Amino acid sequence: MSRSRIVALAGGVGGAKLAQGLAQSLGDRLTIIVNTGDDFEHVGLRISPDIDTMLYTLGGIANRAQGWGIEGETWSFMDQLARLGGPTWFQLGDRDVALHSLRSARLRAGDRLTAITNDLAQALGITSNILPMTDSETPTVVCTPDGDLPFQDYFVRLRCDVTITGFRFENIDQARPTPEVEEALASSELSAIVICPSNPYVSIEPILSVPGMKALLKAAGVPIIAVSPIVAGAAIKGPAARMMRDLGFEPSALACARHYSGLIDALVVDSQDAAEAKAVEELGMKVLVTDTIMRTEEDRKRLADECLEFVAKGLQ
Amino acid sequence: MSRSRIVALAGGVGGAKLAQGLAQSLGDRLTIIVNTGDDFEHVGLRISPDIDTMLYTLGGIANRAQGWGIEGETWSFMDQLARLGGPTWFQLGDRDVALHSLRSARLRAGDRLTAITNDLAQALGITSNILPMTDSETPTVVCTPDGDLPFQDYFVRLRCDVTITGFRFENIDQARPTPEVEEALASSELSAIVICPSNPYVSIEPILSVPGMKALLKAAGVPIIAVSPIVAGAAIKGPAARMMRDLGFEPSALACARHYSGLIDALVVDSQDAAEAKAVEELGMKVLVTDTIMRTEEDRKRLADECLEFVAKGLQ
Repeated sequence: MSRSRIVALAGGVGGAKLAQGLAQSLGDRLTIIVNTGDDFEHVGLRISPDIDTMLYTLGGIANRAQGWGIEGETWSFMDQLARLGGPTWFQLGDRDVALHSLRSARLRAGDRLTAITNDLAQALGITSNILPMTDSETPTVVCTPDGDLPFQDYFVRLRCDVTITGFRFENIDQARPTPEVEEALASSELSAIVICPSNPYVSIEPILSVPGMKALLKAAGVPIIAVSPIVAGAAIKGPAARMMRDLGFEPSALACARHYSGLIDALVVDSQDAAEAKAVEELGMKVLVTDTIMRTEEDRKRLADECLEFVAKGLQ
Repeated sequence: MSRSRIVALAGGVGGAKLAQGLAQSLGDRLTIIVNTGDDFEHVGLRISPDIDTMLYTLGGIANRAQGWGIEGETWSFMDQLARLGGPTWFQLGDRDVALHSLRSARLRAGDRLTAITNDLAQALGITSNILPMTDSETPTVVCTPDGDLPFQDYFVRLRCDVTITGFRFENIDQARPTPEVEEALASSELSAIVICPSNPYVSIEPILSVPGMKALLKAAGVPIIAVSPIVAGAAIKGPAARMMRDLGFEPSALACARHYSGLIDALVVDSQDAAEAKAVEELGMKVLVTDTIMRTEEDRKRLADECLEFVAKGLQ
């Protein structure tokens, strides 16, 4: 196991699972740069879904059965919101709302999302560093043949049941990586960058689209590896496979490799996709073939450790 | 029972009790002008304690045993807020937060507090008209020998355990009665104005201090009666008696009469204070002596009906 630092890029549930595995081995030597393109304002609350999933997962309070939210959550807020005629398409648990309220108050008071996230992580006993990709608001917009949709409208209200033609990240030109992101990627102790098995288009692409981010990743001068979120032609969770198809690609680990080509040095593919390893290698990448589906906490730790070992051995 | 309209002025719990009694007889012929001086922002939420108490009481969901908040409330929000290091001095129930969130979102979107309150009242099945005294923010400041305090700091955090020297209503010079308040007080069907047994200094005085409000009350040309919030030298609830003492007055129904002198035509005093009736009358007011302590729902209805009958009989 390497004693040096790792930076991970991550979005939602799959990313948080691998991040938790990495965090178990690395603790404060892990920095996770998290997508904030999904962030939105709802019933007066500023919600950062991917940061929250990361906080709840690494804080050990995530609801595993449900795949989002907090274990032992209660629903009185939602019940009363419905009674008062408020919107009910986005579920907000009572405990979840506490975090959103605190964040909303501090953002309105002028605090940076990075500082707020750090304080929340500390309160939840998390030693790894969870960093928003930027402190600017850069909302992801989903483009469809019938017009543009705010991301959560697409993702939650319409349950991804929409043909997509592309994405826009609003205000992204004005965004910058934070000093904390810059510092993490410039660290002389950094040994690798791990792109978690998150949606390439709406979880990872927003991070990579922050002006200056790709240059920082390359300037780090360390191996960049990605774990394929596509296994046997399907996404473990979420709309990644359908998006690929809508955009004209056959969903596969190879398609992921092509998507990240020019950025990553290696792809971790699932054992079910071992037959694609050769084609991926022909793109000039190294390949690690292993079981990538994380059903249990042990799976997370094992996959994370295999990634770290792969990096430690020079991608062999 | 009069078939015409009544306007009530009210603040917190005692005011809401009498308003509920009036609402049972009057329904949509009752308009309650409610103090908003207690309103404040807390963990990103805009909270209007007196309007909320009125909504919950008239909506039939108030927690009677507790004296504030909602019956059957749950507390996961508060529990998580504490865990995340948030402020815990102001209790916010999960259902309560739903209302605050909705209101906060609509205020930030530019809606008037009057319109928002009306929609919330309708959602709760309330037929009476609940009107904020103004749509402006006019926070009550409590003056003490050690400096000024925001109202909720005084009322909740310090539990009123502070010597007061006076009050200020910030921004009150810029405030105006709303068109809805003006219309209610200008109605040709108006038969009386009832000042509920609310704190004269921090519930009723803010309403009366809105520029133009006193002129509207007088121009209505109808009897103005007040129900004394002081019974046997003490307040039924809250700091009114202590405030009177701090300000140099012996707390009594007579002191209330003197406080409202020049504004009201009659005072309703408790049977325990019957001995003060003569002195009150000597101030040029009519007096109704009756049982004013509202322990049960029947008490609220009976006191309200007695007030209406008193008005209907020309304050005899």
